[in-house]
Amino acid sequence: MSRTDQAPAPIDHAPQPRGNRAPQKGASWERRLVARLLASVGNPPVRFVLWNGDQLDPPNAEPIAEVRIHDRAALIKLLLDPDLHFGDGYTEGRIDVKGDLAALITETYRRMSTPAGRSWRLRRRNTLSGSRDNIHHHYDVGNDFYKLWLDERMVYTCAYFETPDATLEQAQLAKMDYVCRKLELTPGESVVEAGCGWGSLSLFMAANYGVRVRAFNISHEQIAWARDRARAEGLADRVEFVEDDYRNIAGKHDAFVSVGMLEHVGVANYEGLGAVIDRALTPAGRGLIHSIGRHKPMGSSRWLESRIFPGAEQPALSEMLQVLEPHNFAVLDVENLRLHYAQTLRHWLDRFERAADKIEAMFDDRFVRTYRLYLAASLATFASGWAQLFQVVFNRFQNNDIPRTRAHLYTGQPRSPW
Amino acid sequence: MSRTDQAPAPIDHAPQPRGNRAPQKGASWERRLVARLLASVGNPPVRFVLWNGDQLDPPNAEPIAEVRIHDRAALIKLLLDPDLHFGDGYTEGRIDVKGDLAALITETYRRMSTPAGRSWRLRRRNTLSGSRDNIHHHYDVGNDFYKLWLDERMVYTCAYFETPDATLEQAQLAKMDYVCRKLELTPGESVVEAGCGWGSLSLFMAANYGVRVRAFNISHEQIAWARDRARAEGLADRVEFVEDDYRNIAGKHDAFVSVGMLEHVGVANYEGLGAVIDRALTPAGRGLIHSIGRHKPMGSSRWLESRIFPGAEQPALSEMLQVLEPHNFAVLDVENLRLHYAQTLRHWLDRFERAADKIEAMFDDRFVRTYRLYLAASLATFASGWAQLFQVVFNRFQNNDIPRTRAHLYTGQPRSPW
Repeated sequence: MSRTDQAPAPIDHAPQPRGNRAPQKGASWERRLVARLLASVGNPPVRFVLWNGDQLDPPNAEPIAEVRIHDRAALIKLLLDPDLHFGDGYTEGRIDVKGDLAALITETYRRMSTPAGRSWRLRRRNTLSGSRDNIHHHYDVGNDFYKLWLDERMVYTCAYFETPDATLEQAQLAKMDYVCRKLELTPGESVVEAGCGWGSLSLFMAANYGVRVRAFNISHEQIAWARDRARAEGLADRVEFVEDDYRNIAGKHDAFVSVGMLEHVGVANYEGLGAVIDRALTPAGRGLIHSIGRHKPMGSSRWLESRIFPGAEQPALSEMLQVLEPHNFAVLDVENLRLHYAQTLRHWLDRFERAADKIEAMFDDRFVRTYRLYLAASLATFASGWAQLFQVVFNRFQNNDIPRTRAHLYTGQPRSPW
Repeated sequence: MSRTDQAPAPIDHAPQPRGNRAPQKGASWERRLVARLLASVGNPPVRFVLWNGDQLDPPNAEPIAEVRIHDRAALIKLLLDPDLHFGDGYTEGRIDVKGDLAALITETYRRMSTPAGRSWRLRRRNTLSGSRDNIHHHYDVGNDFYKLWLDERMVYTCAYFETPDATLEQAQLAKMDYVCRKLELTPGESVVEAGCGWGSLSLFMAANYGVRVRAFNISHEQIAWARDRARAEGLADRVEFVEDDYRNIAGKHDAFVSVGMLEHVGVANYEGLGAVIDRALTPAGRGLIHSIGRHKPMGSSRWLESRIFPGAEQPALSEMLQVLEPHNFAVLDVENLRLHYAQTLRHWLDRFERAADKIEAMFDDRFVRTYRLYLAASLATFASGWAQLFQVVFNRFQNNDIPRTRAHLYTGQPRSPW
């Protein structure tokens, strides 16, 4: 436990509750603060247990989880900025949760009518060197850590659960195959991948669709791992992993693909990304961008942005189109896979919990709590609808070599051409 | 022939050709003007025949069509504003085309790198009364006229050609069924349709999916026809046709659908349309908007906007999202059916040509030429990629009652739920 025994701030410094809530006669200040906190997040059915032993149960409902607040300052901070200080309080061990953490956050998010605790956009600019720092922060934590809770291929993006009983491994394979079918890859084609993670998709495309791939990533640890895999799988002559920024993509390719990178690009750089894609694609080229998104423009969670993913932004679909529209790409297909990401995160969180002791031994308890909360809160974000997952397929607007229908994606029949 | 023998303007009034094109020694002013005109639209392989008998053939290519310019003023106007004055010159009979008019325009559009002759947006505002005037202009020309070239159900929107040999009738039925499947209609549900044309989709939904429908349209002739059909098909108790503006939609419905109306709404009114949808839908409600669009924001053809569809605007997908994002709808699915509209227009144009004599007897030659050009130019716009057709499916962002995959749309199997 890395709990910090910070001196509690005097209650008088807390802002007075506003609104016309009637004062509860005889209730302690602490209880009134908890009531105010709960009201501000839509009164989810949660039990609160305070440092002094006070227990507050939800009226007329069974609690879905129990939140234990270990000191007065943690409670006051929660009121001031629930998003940031629930995260910090939890990782510091000043707040504990008994019961289902993901369900607690999901139920809270479901009750929110406006996104709480959103950061200002672009707090950390994604310049070439800024991006390298931001990506290093998260992705270079250590391959051994991610191996403990990702699937065997180390795919760190939303999977595609075609059937209710699909395993995570099956769903990640299904996702990669679905992406290849949407891109209509054919043997001998050249593909460029922007933000390739540990290289699974690139290797899958080369092995199963007979394409050559140049894959870009600025995470040193991921690229090293990906190169080892390419050699081990005998694909090193067909898949080139380039440790470089997407902005330095060169050459002409038949397809562009990016799965889970746009979140790190920043809306201000979308038009520039579109220029890179325009430069990289042949006249008949196709592209697919797979990204976490929002149903409308909004900032990130401050806790997530400051503690987990510096520089990250999740675009609304209208914002994603700033990549494509200025460069004369036409959108052919958009699919929202939001609940697939909730399911993916359920798998990751389960595996993470099973490996929690090992992870605590590798790092410390605070690290475990930080990642547990990150995974649970991400799950809740997708399950509650506050995040979406968009797959967008596009080509150049004048290209008529497009399938008649989408039936071939689902029937296994060849596509019906025009 | 309603050809006007307007006095030709003196050539000296034409703007001097700009750019560094070398003057062609010995070439007449007329020939140089044609060369300039052709260069400005990317040099499509077209033969020009002028009023003085001069014939200009494309270098190194067989002409795909022959354009006859009957007077000098028509040529000069073409140079000044090809979009507007090709249309006006053609309908006035001052310009004739021998050969495939649609192919001529398609090849010209394919060569354009920027949209030519675009109008300023919102030249005719779609206020309640403005919309009524604008819609009356096009849709109240007469049901007998549209019967001559639409399918038997009078569906005046993009069809869905599932197979290469589908007839127009089959493709319109397939489109309506596809819309119903995307909306996941179930018996007993209530649907509101905004902009129902002659009522085909409303009647189809009621007859085949067992739903009740309230359908809005401000075209008096279309509503009258639709009511007759509802009575004749025994559906008058389940489909109510309301002669009113979409802005006056009231009540709560399980689904909202609008096929081919958004083009008449105007981008400035999109957020207002979203407010109407928000008001009209239950918490679990779904929606589908089917609209002509663009691959990026741009104005309409000035000829089309001023002569055919006053008040019409074709939105980029980013602009369509102004309907949905401000009102907390999440996009579930976008499909681009651009080439289906080119195919639909091929059918309409063929039928129109077969009925041209009848139509000339009903109206006059100028009317025939206007509609022929409108259909041919529309075909060319979709075939060349300068227009798109987006079907957008959406629901409220927190609604988790969504299908796992899109497979059921194509396999006939029940949807796989979460």
